[in-house]
Amino acid sequence: MADHNALPLVILAEKFASLPGIGMKTAQRLAYYVMSMSEKDVEDFADALVSAKKNVHRCKNCMNLTEREICPICSSEKRDKNIICVVEAPRDVTAFERTREYHGVYHVLHGLISPLDNMTPEKIHIKELIKRISEGKIKEVIMATNPTVEGDTTAMYIAGLLKPLGVKVTRLAFGLPVGANLEYADEVTLYKALENRNDM
Amino acid sequence: MADHNALPLVILAEKFASLPGIGMKTAQRLAYYVMSMSEKDVEDFADALVSAKKNVHRCKNCMNLTEREICPICSSEKRDKNIICVVEAPRDVTAFERTREYHGVYHVLHGLISPLDNMTPEKIHIKELIKRISEGKIKEVIMATNPTVEGDTTAMYIAGLLKPLGVKVTRLAFGLPVGANLEYADEVTLYKALENRNDM
Repeated sequence: MADHNALPLVILAEKFASLPGIGMKTAQRLAYYVMSMSEKDVEDFADALVSAKKNVHRCKNCMNLTEREICPICSSEKRDKNIICVVEAPRDVTAFERTREYHGVYHVLHGLISPLDNMTPEKIHIKELIKRISEGKIKEVIMATNPTVEGDTTAMYIAGLLKPLGVKVTRLAFGLPVGANLEYADEVTLYKALENRNDM
Repeated sequence: MADHNALPLVILAEKFASLPGIGMKTAQRLAYYVMSMSEKDVEDFADALVSAKKNVHRCKNCMNLTEREICPICSSEKRDKNIICVVEAPRDVTAFERTREYHGVYHVLHGLISPLDNMTPEKIHIKELIKRISEGKIKEVIMATNPTVEGDTTAMYIAGLLKPLGVKVTRLAFGLPVGANLEYADEVTLYKALENRNDM
């Protein structure tokens, strides 16, 4: 925004633009929109920002975000504590919970190993996972990181650490997405789908 | 977000989702991102929201957003007070200022006439424009609303009110955008470009 614009508006637009996926044009539009909100709504928004940051932290057990000491999933009687699903980020927990088909617990790494981005194994919550497994009677650990170079690397690295502990380590299946069109599937996915074919 | 998510995060995501152009998935992503910001950055963001809403209001003269009583453009010695460019919203002022070619002043309507959306002429700042013109020695009013049904209707309506006051009313030129390809121009634009052709 040029200097004819009110400074608080310029500052607000810059704040919006600092969020991921929001460019300067969208940020300006959002700043103008805030002007059209009621003063109470704007204050509620500001409170929601501060309150989320202050009251939400990582579950002591699984590292997922929660406002309690132990998250509702870890403290639920209904969840099978013998199966741990290892994911990159809290959003992945949300994705699995949406399926309503997974009844074990989670472990959130908060990142993936990526030497090029200076993400070393110590920077993600691997040692907390090892601790959980050495303490409890874990039957299976499902490596549910994304099927990318970083996701695969992280899954392989962790599997290497866990196998000596005598725990079963599995990986999510790769294959065609449901509803996909063969014609548009990429070669690697198609190869994985062929390789992992099942009896009918 | 499902009930396994921390409530403050759910509330924050809903606040983001209430902004225009931000869906629930993006809102969740933004809420998670806020968790990764420093506490100070989050508080600065919250302050920027409240401060913009509290300190920015409409210029008494042109209705553009400003933190002063009279905006920098209206109070500048360098601007030609005899030409008023009438626009729909503050973002349009920003667009004109970017050209660095307009040296008159503005009048921001804060909306367009649109009976279907219950936007009647009284709901936008038309009477403040009439007042400015009846008080000052305005030579020209440029109707710079968008070339849409609502923009054209509003421009026609205001022109009808201003002409009896003896002021020159003009409208932005319609034609091909610079760098456009004839092949892809829509019929109405091409017709306007033909109709408004200039001598070379």
